[in-house]
Amino acid sequence: MQAAQTFRQPLKPLDDALQELLAHAKPLAGSQQVSTFDADGRVLLQAAVSPLQVPPQDNSAMDGYAVRAAECVVNGAGGEAVLPVSQRIPAGVAPDALALGSVARIFTGAPVPAGADAIVMQEDCEVLEEGRVRIKTQPKTGQWIRRAGEDIRQGATVIEAGVRLTPAHLGLAASMGFASLNVARKPRVALFSTGDELVMPGTVAPQDMKPGSIYNSNRFFLRALLLRMGCEVTDLGIVPDDREATIAALADAAMDHDVIVTSGGVSVGEEDHIKPAVQALGQLDLWQINIKPGKPFAYGRVNRESGTGFAHFVGLPGNPVSGFVTFQVLVRPFLLRLQGVQNVLPRSIEARADFALSKSDKRREFLRVRYNERGGLELFKNQSSGVLTSTAWGDGVVDNPAGTTIAVGDSVRFIPFSELMA
Amino acid sequence: MQAAQTFRQPLKPLDDALQELLAHAKPLAGSQQVSTFDADGRVLLQAAVSPLQVPPQDNSAMDGYAVRAAECVVNGAGGEAVLPVSQRIPAGVAPDALALGSVARIFTGAPVPAGADAIVMQEDCEVLEEGRVRIKTQPKTGQWIRRAGEDIRQGATVIEAGVRLTPAHLGLAASMGFASLNVARKPRVALFSTGDELVMPGTVAPQDMKPGSIYNSNRFFLRALLLRMGCEVTDLGIVPDDREATIAALADAAMDHDVIVTSGGVSVGEEDHIKPAVQALGQLDLWQINIKPGKPFAYGRVNRESGTGFAHFVGLPGNPVSGFVTFQVLVRPFLLRLQGVQNVLPRSIEARADFALSKSDKRREFLRVRYNERGGLELFKNQSSGVLTSTAWGDGVVDNPAGTTIAVGDSVRFIPFSELMA
Repeated sequence: MQAAQTFRQPLKPLDDALQELLAHAKPLAGSQQVSTFDADGRVLLQAAVSPLQVPPQDNSAMDGYAVRAAECVVNGAGGEAVLPVSQRIPAGVAPDALALGSVARIFTGAPVPAGADAIVMQEDCEVLEEGRVRIKTQPKTGQWIRRAGEDIRQGATVIEAGVRLTPAHLGLAASMGFASLNVARKPRVALFSTGDELVMPGTVAPQDMKPGSIYNSNRFFLRALLLRMGCEVTDLGIVPDDREATIAALADAAMDHDVIVTSGGVSVGEEDHIKPAVQALGQLDLWQINIKPGKPFAYGRVNRESGTGFAHFVGLPGNPVSGFVTFQVLVRPFLLRLQGVQNVLPRSIEARADFALSKSDKRREFLRVRYNERGGLELFKNQSSGVLTSTAWGDGVVDNPAGTTIAVGDSVRFIPFSELMA
Repeated sequence: MQAAQTFRQPLKPLDDALQELLAHAKPLAGSQQVSTFDADGRVLLQAAVSPLQVPPQDNSAMDGYAVRAAECVVNGAGGEAVLPVSQRIPAGVAPDALALGSVARIFTGAPVPAGADAIVMQEDCEVLEEGRVRIKTQPKTGQWIRRAGEDIRQGATVIEAGVRLTPAHLGLAASMGFASLNVARKPRVALFSTGDELVMPGTVAPQDMKPGSIYNSNRFFLRALLLRMGCEVTDLGIVPDDREATIAALADAAMDHDVIVTSGGVSVGEEDHIKPAVQALGQLDLWQINIKPGKPFAYGRVNRESGTGFAHFVGLPGNPVSGFVTFQVLVRPFLLRLQGVQNVLPRSIEARADFALSKSDKRREFLRVRYNERGGLELFKNQSSGVLTSTAWGDGVVDNPAGTTIAVGDSVRFIPFSELMA
């Protein structure tokens, strides 16, 4: 008698899966020196240590007049200090010391002259004839002076290695004089789809679609998400419909890619050629992750025929929303770690649920939500995993623990899509 | 006697400034048909109306067995329904009607056969010999069936015109069969810096910097922010140090750009050639916006010599953080509206301040903050407008009304940088 086949597999908690996956994500060898102009979104490999202090010297935070505060004493009601302007200091000019009993015209960013101990902004001054100025307020010592090194101390580590750079980091690096930065090379990712039911948009008109056929949507959002993660993407189309051809295609992709990503074909017992092909070329683990949407997930390796190294294999569920969420919570951290990012986990913020979830789920659920005008969160009405509209409509997800209901007004953990898509 | 010169100008509320600015932002003429693959970040000009329903027919949400629920009655303790498998339905195949007294093997996404009214997931089944299956749970009618049109109804407007596309939108458009999309053309932006104190990184070593000189950092983050806003950017370097040359450079830039952006030189009474040059070529309004950081701002027009049309002129403050924040709250909405985006205002969410702000400001303040582990917000300790580190460190800003202090635990309005940088 043939042994009975069972399908049930214990569900793996997401945090365990993530830890296991990240243990495989050894940062890629190799780096690249790129112009600071072009480093947005790249991962810094060599910490940016400042060779100078910023600002280099005390400078003015305002357009106005550099003064000695003690010389600007306002003499009771109506009396205001009137002083001559002894010099003019535009930004970029080295000033003389401030002559006693005078003020200096100064502009934002210009060095404060020796002797001056406050800036009076021009809105508080009146220019009189014969090069004199009336100071209409009593300045406090130190006011509107930006101190040397206030922004950056010399020798300080200003951007740590392993940080993914944003426009603000580029400005910060430039302010220290870095014209180029050492960043991780882009992971090379090969993208496959599986599924005989898939039709590429543009190849068959909607009215001519055969029963059972659907348009392939996963490759479109997966490619865009991979690009946002800083990857170079090769779209290899649909997996060939035969085992030997699939093996050949995977072996070929492994040669010049770091990661092979497929969409579909990873459910237990599902129809497809990918699983035996990956197993023939390396190894494959099929997981059932305890999240909703997005249960099935596969991680493996495709060994290179050259005998040197392997390509990571990542298999995502074919359901669009499942694939989308699984990419965000598992593949994104993996791809960032390959680039050397230290803090790869999406961060959440406590926010107010302006909705109720009366039915809890056995799995940890990522509910698609959107900001409302009142600063709270609204739930997309259809949380089905086939409905990609929820991810387009939403601003992020609520990370809802297994077995938890939500009442209107509850504090929930919100993860903005910016933490998941950028 | 010469008239006394005064500098004080009333501060303009941000919302007024924004409204005035947006009134000038007429969407750019011209559109582009791009592959759906390449439409991430672009603005859809023609609503995507679905030519079909998604899914096209009832299909399975699980790998398992399609059944008639009434035939799977579990007969008391230990008794479980055992039924023959009459057909096998992979995705993409048109099935026969389900034979009475049988079940059909079915896979995720495959059409549900006529007669079946529920799917039992394979984890709740046991495969027996002779092509039979034991159904171990009592299915509910309709379970694990995704209904035809559940995702998208035929004729529904699925993506409105004026929406900025994300990876999710690309997937959604592809699922309706759109191989390409009609999007706004990219705004062409010319970027200038002003300021004699500015030195480009790489041209002078840190130890050789002259007193008063600082590295130019604004062009680096402004270029990156403009690219993120979907613009084509021409970096035109430092504004020439003479009035006629400045006029020539601006007139030249206006010919083939939609917008000219400058950094610095917009404070009242500030040293520079930009203001008279813009005024000579068109018009310029200098504003003092009631926000901190970021008070000065200029908007104007540079008329094209051809006599047809003009380039918008936007002047940002030279202080890095002021320039950064002003770009986000004023220029970003402006650039999005030029591309036809309807909802251009950054949205905020109520979050918990895990910090105190004991001193309020007369201006509406954008405080740089970061998420902490507890789901609350931490304040960057130095909120000075010269300190670009705050914007690199932060996850976003708290939009704090003028004259408002904050106590630990207060609800504040948080705008994530994703709303401001993407």
